[in-house]
Amino acid sequence: MRVPLSKDTRLCISLSGRPSNIGTRFHNYLYDLLGLDYIYKAFTTTDIAAAIGGVRALGIRGCSVSMPFKQDVLALVDEVEPSAQAIRAVNTIVNDLSVPGGRLTASNTDYLAVQRLIGEHGLQPTQSVLVYGSGGMASAVATAFRDLGFERGTVVARNAETGRALAERVGYDYAGEPRGGDVLVNVTPVGMAGAAEARETPFPDAVIAAAHTVFDVVAMPSETPLIKAARGAGVRVITGAEVIALQAAEQFERYTGVRPTAEQVLAASAVSRA
Amino acid sequence: MRVPLSKDTRLCISLSGRPSNIGTRFHNYLYDLLGLDYIYKAFTTTDIAAAIGGVRALGIRGCSVSMPFKQDVLALVDEVEPSAQAIRAVNTIVNDLSVPGGRLTASNTDYLAVQRLIGEHGLQPTQSVLVYGSGGMASAVATAFRDLGFERGTVVARNAETGRALAERVGYDYAGEPRGGDVLVNVTPVGMAGAAEARETPFPDAVIAAAHTVFDVVAMPSETPLIKAARGAGVRVITGAEVIALQAAEQFERYTGVRPTAEQVLAASAVSRA
Repeated sequence: MRVPLSKDTRLCISLSGRPSNIGTRFHNYLYDLLGLDYIYKAFTTTDIAAAIGGVRALGIRGCSVSMPFKQDVLALVDEVEPSAQAIRAVNTIVNDLSVPGGRLTASNTDYLAVQRLIGEHGLQPTQSVLVYGSGGMASAVATAFRDLGFERGTVVARNAETGRALAERVGYDYAGEPRGGDVLVNVTPVGMAGAAEARETPFPDAVIAAAHTVFDVVAMPSETPLIKAARGAGVRVITGAEVIALQAAEQFERYTGVRPTAEQVLAASAVSRA
Repeated sequence: MRVPLSKDTRLCISLSGRPSNIGTRFHNYLYDLLGLDYIYKAFTTTDIAAAIGGVRALGIRGCSVSMPFKQDVLALVDEVEPSAQAIRAVNTIVNDLSVPGGRLTASNTDYLAVQRLIGEHGLQPTQSVLVYGSGGMASAVATAFRDLGFERGTVVARNAETGRALAERVGYDYAGEPRGGDVLVNVTPVGMAGAAEARETPFPDAVIAAAHTVFDVVAMPSETPLIKAARGAGVRVITGAEVIALQAAEQFERYTGVRPTAEQVLAASAVSRA
């Protein structure tokens, strides 16, 4: 049941170039379920500095940050946590309202969620990692593995410039085409609903079958062709839905101080993606 | 029934030094009743320029403005309507979101509401007006009467400096103590719940009985000692609850494009003051 809005209701927002409804649904579902006096709404902006200024001036409690603002906000906050520092990209800003005028702390819950999933699924630093992709999320994934001690890694990217740059930054090899590895991570749009390669898998069947774990960051659909192929080959999987739910739960806890249970996160995730 | 929040939900806010819940309840009640995809929430701020910058950057649709920001925002908007120009005080900002980056227009619905009530209650410019008070709302009231052609007026205020200044600005007489008049308007806290003079009337009984209409801007309670005394003496009344409801309805229409009916405004007003 929705708590009636009042002057004391906390507002959390998201800022992105092209907002979706996923975060708005996820957070509001859990606010209602848990009886928390919060509301959440997605926004876009053409002036990120003024928008963050507005977060301060209005005492907005939390702000999720998506493309193309993840780097720009680094200079606009008061503190950058190691998770965001590690990849020079922010997806979460928490405003400490107990400080007069507020105090903004930036973190990256994508990075934190990937590290948590690596632990929960029992991956071992001795395993080799192949990260396919060289964008912002690929950077979060590769850095999360590297920072947990995974030293044997390869960044695969068609774009040699961004691929080599990421590989160099994390100390991994670079390759232009997919090859084998114990842990295969897809951070490309291959298999994503609506993408040109929606029905394709990013890795050859033999490479999938030889892997220990396949980790697909694509969350929509959750059962991508890659995840299906891995399940079919008896290979362990980590899905993009897990990443999204975990990073959103992490945000939720930072904004509200309440950690939703795994079941609640699952339900909120289902509602938000319906 | 509440429309589920989405990225497309319009946000309206208020900015004041000491926010109440009245506006938040009033607007959200009507949004729900009319099935409008809007939410409204009161905010305070210590940085009005950054807050208005945030209204622009986040595409916030409407912003109600209270003390102590009514003058400061004049310099922060793109256009000032005559209602706000007349008293150099803003209580309503509408953001035209069809313009890239938005366009802020300021108005004063207190002034507009007073003028509308003067018309609805059939007051005539030949009547003499006594305005008791010299603050921002007294300025709105006196200017609203003067601009409708009421030329015989007196501003009464214990504070001779602000009282004389207002009287001079609108071309009315000044007096330090209440005297008689056809229309008596109370714009002091006398009779307001919680005020030291909560149980008092600002005018002597004989002055009340001799008046044509008593207009009390105090809205909480709606039935002030002054309103009760006027009713008891068979004198016509205009209540502060009417002012608040009418100005809020005016704001509501400006924010949403929908004019609530008088019954809906009454219901929303009752809920918001419960």
